[in-house]
Amino acid sequence: MDNLFDIEEWGISQASFDPKLQKAAESIFSLGNGNFGQRANHEEFYSGDSLQGNYVGGVYYPDKTRVGWWKNGYPEYFAKVLNGCNWSGLDIYVNGIRLDLGKLKIISFKRSLNFKTGLLSRESVLELKTGEQIMIHAERFCSMDNDRIGAVSYSIKALSGNLDLNISVFLDNDVRNEDSNYDEIFWDHVYSISDDEEKYVLAKTKKSEFLVATSMFYCCKIDNKRIEVKVNAECSPLKICDRFQLSINEGQVFQINKVVSIVSSLASEGAEVVDSCLATLNGIRANSYEDLRNNHMNAWAEIWKNADITIKGDLAAQQAIRFNIFHLFQTYTGKNAKLNVGPKGFTGEKYGGATYWDTEAYCIPFFLKTAPSNVSRQLLKYRYDQLGMAIENAEKLGFKNGAALFPMVTMNGEECHNEWEITFEEIHRNAAIVHAIHNYTKHTGDSSCLMDYGWEVVFGVARFWMQRFNWSERKNAYVMLGVTGPNEYENNVNNNWYTNYAARWCLKYALDVNLKLDRDKGLTEEEIDRMTEIVAKVYLPEDEKGEIFLQDDGFLDKELIPASEIPENERPINQYWSWDRILRSVYIKQADVLQGLYFFYDNFSKECVEANYRFYEPFTVHESSLSPCIHSILAARIGLNSEAYKHYLRTSRLDLDDYNKEVHEGLHITSMAGTWMSVVEGLAGVHVSDAGVRIAPSIPKNWEALSFQIIVNNQPLSIVLRQNEASFENRGDLDLALEYGEVSKVIKPKERVEFLMNMS
Amino acid sequence: MDNLFDIEEWGISQASFDPKLQKAAESIFSLGNGNFGQRANHEEFYSGDSLQGNYVGGVYYPDKTRVGWWKNGYPEYFAKVLNGCNWSGLDIYVNGIRLDLGKLKIISFKRSLNFKTGLLSRESVLELKTGEQIMIHAERFCSMDNDRIGAVSYSIKALSGNLDLNISVFLDNDVRNEDSNYDEIFWDHVYSISDDEEKYVLAKTKKSEFLVATSMFYCCKIDNKRIEVKVNAECSPLKICDRFQLSINEGQVFQINKVVSIVSSLASEGAEVVDSCLATLNGIRANSYEDLRNNHMNAWAEIWKNADITIKGDLAAQQAIRFNIFHLFQTYTGKNAKLNVGPKGFTGEKYGGATYWDTEAYCIPFFLKTAPSNVSRQLLKYRYDQLGMAIENAEKLGFKNGAALFPMVTMNGEECHNEWEITFEEIHRNAAIVHAIHNYTKHTGDSSCLMDYGWEVVFGVARFWMQRFNWSERKNAYVMLGVTGPNEYENNVNNNWYTNYAARWCLKYALDVNLKLDRDKGLTEEEIDRMTEIVAKVYLPEDEKGEIFLQDDGFLDKELIPASEIPENERPINQYWSWDRILRSVYIKQADVLQGLYFFYDNFSKECVEANYRFYEPFTVHESSLSPCIHSILAARIGLNSEAYKHYLRTSRLDLDDYNKEVHEGLHITSMAGTWMSVVEGLAGVHVSDAGVRIAPSIPKNWEALSFQIIVNNQPLSIVLRQNEASFENRGDLDLALEYGEVSKVIKPKERVEFLMNMS
Repeated sequence: MDNLFDIEEWGISQASFDPKLQKAAESIFSLGNGNFGQRANHEEFYSGDSLQGNYVGGVYYPDKTRVGWWKNGYPEYFAKVLNGCNWSGLDIYVNGIRLDLGKLKIISFKRSLNFKTGLLSRESVLELKTGEQIMIHAERFCSMDNDRIGAVSYSIKALSGNLDLNISVFLDNDVRNEDSNYDEIFWDHVYSISDDEEKYVLAKTKKSEFLVATSMFYCCKIDNKRIEVKVNAECSPLKICDRFQLSINEGQVFQINKVVSIVSSLASEGAEVVDSCLATLNGIRANSYEDLRNNHMNAWAEIWKNADITIKGDLAAQQAIRFNIFHLFQTYTGKNAKLNVGPKGFTGEKYGGATYWDTEAYCIPFFLKTAPSNVSRQLLKYRYDQLGMAIENAEKLGFKNGAALFPMVTMNGEECHNEWEITFEEIHRNAAIVHAIHNYTKHTGDSSCLMDYGWEVVFGVARFWMQRFNWSERKNAYVMLGVTGPNEYENNVNNNWYTNYAARWCLKYALDVNLKLDRDKGLTEEEIDRMTEIVAKVYLPEDEKGEIFLQDDGFLDKELIPASEIPENERPINQYWSWDRILRSVYIKQADVLQGLYFFYDNFSKECVEANYRFYEPFTVHESSLSPCIHSILAARIGLNSEAYKHYLRTSRLDLDDYNKEVHEGLHITSMAGTWMSVVEGLAGVHVSDAGVRIAPSIPKNWEALSFQIIVNNQPLSIVLRQNEASFENRGDLDLALEYGEVSKVIKPKERVEFLMNMS
Repeated sequence: MDNLFDIEEWGISQASFDPKLQKAAESIFSLGNGNFGQRANHEEFYSGDSLQGNYVGGVYYPDKTRVGWWKNGYPEYFAKVLNGCNWSGLDIYVNGIRLDLGKLKIISFKRSLNFKTGLLSRESVLELKTGEQIMIHAERFCSMDNDRIGAVSYSIKALSGNLDLNISVFLDNDVRNEDSNYDEIFWDHVYSISDDEEKYVLAKTKKSEFLVATSMFYCCKIDNKRIEVKVNAECSPLKICDRFQLSINEGQVFQINKVVSIVSSLASEGAEVVDSCLATLNGIRANSYEDLRNNHMNAWAEIWKNADITIKGDLAAQQAIRFNIFHLFQTYTGKNAKLNVGPKGFTGEKYGGATYWDTEAYCIPFFLKTAPSNVSRQLLKYRYDQLGMAIENAEKLGFKNGAALFPMVTMNGEECHNEWEITFEEIHRNAAIVHAIHNYTKHTGDSSCLMDYGWEVVFGVARFWMQRFNWSERKNAYVMLGVTGPNEYENNVNNNWYTNYAARWCLKYALDVNLKLDRDKGLTEEEIDRMTEIVAKVYLPEDEKGEIFLQDDGFLDKELIPASEIPENERPINQYWSWDRILRSVYIKQADVLQGLYFFYDNFSKECVEANYRFYEPFTVHESSLSPCIHSILAARIGLNSEAYKHYLRTSRLDLDDYNKEVHEGLHITSMAGTWMSVVEGLAGVHVSDAGVRIAPSIPKNWEALSFQIIVNNQPLSIVLRQNEASFENRGDLDLALEYGEVSKVIKPKERVEFLMNMS
């Protein structure tokens, strides 16, 4: 696999311009700050192939999907993340010629994204048709310090000859989604103002009626001295544009610094959206671009203190892991309980909808160990806030008495995906949400989340499972019919082991939680009896010898041909095989039984994990970016180190090297958490249990050292792993129980311990 | 259940006008002749709620259904039957007031459809605002004699006062489908001509590029004397319109007879569509309306000779059965191998697509016994002509070497339905097509169809089944995974008994047919071995005691609660329950195991049928119009006469009494064949086997006599059944083996035999 762009320890760069790579670069060099984000579109006009993309967290449009075979309970729309105001754009004519990398002669080009600072920069020498050469330099960021602020600094140097410049500085909300079903525009104009005091666009989304205000101010300099320009200000629906002219002489540098504030009705905290947006901008008008930039960089430095991973001896791996961590924090910061982690973050439109079970199964484990606990807690709060809609959703499907089914895909708590086999049947998501509450409590030692409101989610979900199991006379057990497990290459199966096991776990957990609650909050006697009865008699399919768990009742009737026998030119099978063929094949899209062994890690012996891993891995085609990390972690656990590394490689540079030829559409944000998991939980073998932290590393032969920090019980633990040694430093204030290989040890606060044995 | 319209022995009528019933009446009073048809829209303008519908056989539009979750093998479009040229319309102003039953005062109204003659007529006295009263009389038909001809006779009598008439006679192809996904018009204008010689519109469908020419001539009379009128002829895209004025005095009658010819590129037999259309019209220009009408009525008389059923003692039943037979012959006549039997015929737009397995499972049994063999043979030919596309369809799904999968829904041989659980998995349709070839051969004694080309279909289908079964180590048998049986309330199940049984039957039949063929046409040795091996080892699920066949592997894990316990206000469940709830419930939409016992009637003992009927009937909700007839037939067979009658009642007046509140959308044409089946094969107990005809009647207590004729081996057999006697007359030229109750008898040509015992 070739690298698309250049490898650096702390960033990624591109040393020459290739129009064919522009859309991929726009994805990979994307910026975001948890509240909004954008693709790395050129600031100036670009006539080449491009997906202009600016996205504001939580702002969506419910695009209708009309199908002829409507079924009861179908959601009425498919939510789309909404392409919004282009705030970083400029339109520039130099000596009458438009600046456009698609048309001008490019003498040199360099684009860089620095993960440490969160700055995107670009420098390029261009030659006009008329012979003059100019150098442009652009830098921009989405402020991690103030998540309503974005800023661009753009300069033009006259390398040869004098230049007449015609500049348009604009905010343009008149944009369409590339994935609109009916080519509609999803925005309504509210109003646009542009005078000396205020310059902003207020737009409203159709149907969903989100307001988004975008305002700007800018200042111009020549050779770093501020100048005033005579502006012709235009206002049109959904757009404002300031135009001015000026001239610079050979050798001079013109610079414009544009600062914007973006506030949506999701983030205005009760105030009027426009007021809030203007107030934000007024609050920073006194700051220079450099001040804002410094604040932004400092915020990133804080994040990296907790979250960084260093890999010595493998530059590509080093870049990849930081790239993934960087994008995860660009996508989600935990500041706003109305937001979540979209599969493509702010880097593209595909998959519509912000929230999948990816959040609980992959992102929460990441944030739990790399960020203060309030970040993960905010993600739990998001689901709690949507509990009412989850109960409504379950009611639509015929469930009663407060049973809750959280949606498979959502923006606001309503289901917005409509394949019945997913929406109605891939119900294991419900268990992941409860498991995340448990996981949060275990990692942070903070049970207030559970006791304050989490219990309501736990009970709602337990009531769903209680009703969803039915008694089978034939099996003399409770069975669960008609589900889709994590392996979406089987639909509508009976007794998916993972779902049955996870559902039983949820029922047990609810019974446990019930014991800790005041009576008036608790389950009814009838519910307790029923849940206890089901827990005792859930059917969990196994093979005849009791060696492996069966993915579902029919699994062993399939032809058990390993995936290695699928011809190379038929992979991925989802691009070459018809759906029915995929369904009745044995091939597994992503970890299913193994997902359960990962989630409920402490409940299974190494032998049990090994038998199931060896049975299912050969049938797994890993056609979800979320699959290899789970296999990597389990392979490491059972000592299959080279397998663990193989699976890690499959996930680590998925977007950077564009394995699936789709990076132009955006990045796989949630699967980046999976990559992080394969490093920390897989190769480094970190496992947090009630007993403390267990570490069983199997770091790749070519890695000199792997160093990182995790947060457990709000205590930072520094970890350095080398081929033949390991060291741990308890940087917190409490004792920490550590298990390393066969050794158990309690590390005192500020204590550093070293081990010299080779674990790999 | 109330009757919507009046009951007559040979027709249906409506004695007063109710705008709320207009759309229902438009469906019920529909006309057709196998080549084209139309809803019973008023000829003159009507401002009330109406679905104007004119449909030409086989002319469709591939309307795109965009879905976000495309799966490989999905068809790209959903074919829609196309609403076409309004040819029976007139627009009339009387003393400046537009004739419109939605606006004028209606003094009297009577509409009648005569099944015997195929004439739709209407007589109404109307009062103008200005006080004058007029009587309009309209009659029209779609000629069964010449299926390119339609004709209208329309007259206005001045009951009081003199009348100035302003008449527009038009052909209007500028029409839209009510069910268009994107409100597009599906027609392109080619050209319109209107001069003294020729008056026609030529239109072309978008994408599918069917040409349809509609031409007209008309003549006017006052008091039955031909008059010339001065015409202002207008041509516009997709429309022509002749306007003229005239006056009549009180007591006089103005009459216009309009005759049209409709020819599509599917029916023009190689000639230019316009030439063919004009030639048709020129060929009959010398005929009067009355001549055409007589020819039409004679053609109907011929059909009724074979197809009529008389029921003495139950007028509602009498009307219903003739209504059903009438509409079946209006929909399909067997004249054009490119046509088939659409679920709504020419009476509405719903369900898009002309051909479902309804044709083989329901319509062919009807036509086999009621019409000359060429009619059924044409339906077999239709599938044979599409074999190439069925092979392509199977290839798209990964099958090889000539395996054929016929589409679930089609207009031209391509699949045009796209729910994966139907399109890819409801593959039992393939077996019904082969079974129809077998059934044809058995009924007609004509094996030329099989030997000339049917064998290719038999082998293509057998090759599909051969590849579709897979070996299960665990079951030590061939299994079929991931199918949907006739009961569409279960999807993606394993080992649907009906599908496995029918597939095995197809393989056996292919091996039998192979023995009769020349070597060079036959199956390969390898295919023979493989098919033989599978036939010997197909897995057919049964319950543990071997008493009943299991609908599929998981059926007995469901909660076995009879349908009688579903609250009335949750029926039909497909309108109240979510899809996943329906899927995991035990409820059966339509006969599934029982469909197999019906198809392969001779292979099962009465005890076996009874055990399965008693097990499955309580779980069957009959939410398909195709279900009760099968239950009726089997109930009659096992002596449950009142059950048989109950099921018959459920199907007999489905449309006439609008059981499902949807008759305004069109009629359930294919299920009408099911009604016929419940009378002939159920209540009359007629069963044709290789051994001859077996008759075991259980006619309802309130029926005095049930008389009809069936055709077996091209020999008409007249049957009269009364409560305590039965008589049979062999009206053919060959001996006929008859089994009646315990008695077996050979009836000689022209012989009539009577039985006096009571069978019921």
